Amino acid sequence: MNFNSWLENKINNIENFIINIIGEENNPQGVIYEAMNYSLLSGGKRLRPVLLLASYELFKDNSTDVMPFACSMEMIHTYSLIHDDLPAMDNDDYRRGKLSNHKRYGEAIAILAGDGLLNKAFETGIKACLSCDDKSRGLGALNIIAKASGVDGMIGGQVVDMSGHEKIKTLEDLKHMYSLKTGAIIKSSIIAGAILGGADESELKSLEIFADKIGLAFQIEDDILDVTSTLEKLGKKTGSDIANDKITYLSFVSIEEAQSHAEQLTKEATEALSIFGDKAKYLIELAESLTKRDH
Amino acid sequence: MNFNSWLENKINNIENFIINIIGEENNPQGVIYEAMNYSLLSGGKRLRPVLLLASYELFKDNSTDVMPFACSMEMIHTYSLIHDDLPAMDNDDYRRGKLSNHKRYGEAIAILAGDGLLNKAFETGIKACLSCDDKSRGLGALNIIAKASGVDGMIGGQVVDMSGHEKIKTLEDLKHMYSLKTGAIIKSSIIAGAILGGADESELKSLEIFADKIGLAFQIEDDILDVTSTLEKLGKKTGSDIANDKITYLSFVSIEEAQSHAEQLTKEATEALSIFGDKAKYLIELAESLTKRDH
Repeated sequence: MNFNSWLENKINNIENFIINIIGEENNPQGVIYEAMNYSLLSGGKRLRPVLLLASYELFKDNSTDVMPFACSMEMIHTYSLIHDDLPAMDNDDYRRGKLSNHKRYGEAIAILAGDGLLNKAFETGIKACLSCDDKSRGLGALNIIAKASGVDGMIGGQVVDMSGHEKIKTLEDLKHMYSLKTGAIIKSSIIAGAILGGADESELKSLEIFADKIGLAFQIEDDILDVTSTLEKLGKKTGSDIANDKITYLSFVSIEEAQSHAEQLTKEATEALSIFGDKAKYLIELAESLTKRDH
Repeated sequence: MNFNSWLENKINNIENFIINIIGEENNPQGVIYEAMNYSLLSGGKRLRPVLLLASYELFKDNSTDVMPFACSMEMIHTYSLIHDDLPAMDNDDYRRGKLSNHKRYGEAIAILAGDGLLNKAFETGIKACLSCDDKSRGLGALNIIAKASGVDGMIGGQVVDMSGHEKIKTLEDLKHMYSLKTGAIIKSSIIAGAILGGADESELKSLEIFADKIGLAFQIEDDILDVTSTLEKLGKKTGSDIANDKITYLSFVSIEEAQSHAEQLTKEATEALSIFGDKAKYLIELAESLTKRDH
């Protein structure tokens, strides 16, 4: 199967799974289900669940069994976007080409929809663990995911990002913040997939190198797109980093240098997967597509 | 050991555990750890973790092993209070006699501190499961907790509560909302403790009856205290239900009737524990103390 067909197939499977996950809307608290689905089903690249599945498929042929874990990653990612968009945080009115959750449902429901998605991510993962043949692997994956999404990972990264110039003075400070804010969840998707697949220590080590490098490359590309892309392609306002006086990769290097760093990181990332041979082809194409994207 | 010594001992053990749980404050994202601890360590009755421990002790002598699960309940409870107090929700300035989290740290940090506590609750539970001898029991308990704290439990209850007069027209509607908003977490504390202890089906059934009844009794007492207590005793503004035009148990019955309902529910609850004999003595005293409290 070629990469594009493989990717389309994975995204279809993910969307078929998450469309049924939130539950019934036809009850007294229906609006919260609607609000959760509004953000969860509004498209997006589904990068994190796809990474988990691709990583798992380094070890197993069929990734159907780990779909709940993959979709947990998407729920965590979606909740973080809903809360980051709130007026008290980044105050963004648009997300993925639609009104952001609080602009559509109000702040109270948006806060609760985010809470609900974070909770549902763990609920889904725990339920999947309960029916795992190997509960230690399932719990090992959940343990990695929970650390990455928490205050020592993604949430901590958001805190540093909000503190802006006060805490981010050098490119190294920025890279550290990125490794928490976006890197931790990308990395945990890859590592959780590998743990579920039964990776050994040296395989995990290679995947950690791969994950750290593509996580940073992805974020550099995001900073570039905020300057070079359009609202139509990106689904959210461009130029917002400059407008909000945000520190980005481009605060320290030129666009050309940034693009070259992203490409170099991607090259090094894919080299780290050499031990997997041809089995890593989709993961490599996925990594390469991240620095060639226009949204 | 008499009840008061037992309770004091349990609360001490819980507080010794949670004081070490959040992590280091001495790093770039330190303020978020401080904000999480601010609410987590500000006292409170520790009712939910105590219930989990008391329920577990129906089956086992020593509850040290399940302390992480107990403290997860307190973290979930605390996060829900932080988010409920936000301006977009109940807009409360005080909690447990101190400024509410967002009044102290600002809205953005309060939202993230809530997120961080919910995440940490699962992180703590998952880590504890990983070292459980019987992983199925640990996962069974987490599964119950995750359902209860989610959109089909506590979060759903908050949504109905916020919709107010629109969705709550009868005493039955109100009881249903309470069974979600406060009842679900109280019940899941008791049931999770019992699952961890190895309860059989009939034991779980008795504990479910007990839990449903004391959950409602607890909430009725809360409604009464909002009218009859003082700021000093309650640690938050009294009379706020009336000021906010909230529907409470007292919207449907008199204070005297409400008190009598709470006592009757407590009596029926304790009767459901007869199968446990003397082993249930602390759980029964705990239930009885809930309708005699002044805060």
